[in-house]
Amino acid sequence: MKRYSSLLFGIPLLLILAACSNTTEQPTEDPTTEMLQHTVYFYLNSDVTSEEKEAFEEGLEELLEIPAIHQSELGVPAATEERDVTDHGYAYVIYTWFETMEDYKTYADHPDHLEFIDEYNGLWVDVKVYDANIISSH
Amino acid sequence: MKRYSSLLFGIPLLLILAACSNTTEQPTEDPTTEMLQHTVYFYLNSDVTSEEKEAFEEGLEELLEIPAIHQSELGVPAATEERDVTDHGYAYVIYTWFETMEDYKTYADHPDHLEFIDEYNGLWVDVKVYDANIISSH
Repeated sequence: MKRYSSLLFGIPLLLILAACSNTTEQPTEDPTTEMLQHTVYFYLNSDVTSEEKEAFEEGLEELLEIPAIHQSELGVPAATEERDVTDHGYAYVIYTWFETMEDYKTYADHPDHLEFIDEYNGLWVDVKVYDANIISSH
Repeated sequence: MKRYSSLLFGIPLLLILAACSNTTEQPTEDPTTEMLQHTVYFYLNSDVTSEEKEAFEEGLEELLEIPAIHQSELGVPAATEERDVTDHGYAYVIYTWFETMEDYKTYADHPDHLEFIDEYNGLWVDVKVYDANIISSH
């Protein structure tokens, strides 16, 4: 009976420990290092209505669902101090991270991306794009 | 003996399950939402030597250790296609995330930040700064 008890409790215990060992894996310290970071600042026409702006924001949210994107953020200008070097003039910014250049190209050529450009490019007066290789993250 | 066995195996089992339930907590889906994102692109003088550039990069790495910063990344221009809208001309970019405006101000006024500016501002010809409130992250 003692041997049977050990088996009865021991096996589930091992299974639980195995499951735990999978879920307790720590994320790597710098998960975005070596990723491609693609940032776009959008400057809208002054005559864009609040409805058009709202639709544009929804369009950006949909754009960021394209699966090739590893992770993303959507931002608006922050109320930091005015400085000559600081640009508060954009309406929206998207930050996107790609694991590989191929993923970036998949995103760039994705029908949803092209549709987004077609649908909304009349709203913006300018875009500024910065692409970076992340060499370290903290 | 049977009751003792149950106790013997049952208590450690409960403890392990409790430990597991802590470690299997999923991170929130959008950890940077509502954070302040502060991005700086650095454009260096054309006569900056490779030694000076290396020292500058080390200076940036030290700068990003200021504790008020929630998370950060250091990047260099990526080899994406040349486009009118894409700026590949900067030498380095830092992305920093702050949980609050107060943390951002703590960073801005931090002696290590001021020392960084004093030590290296002779190297750059221009900086471009963008501050954003993250309204969603994916």
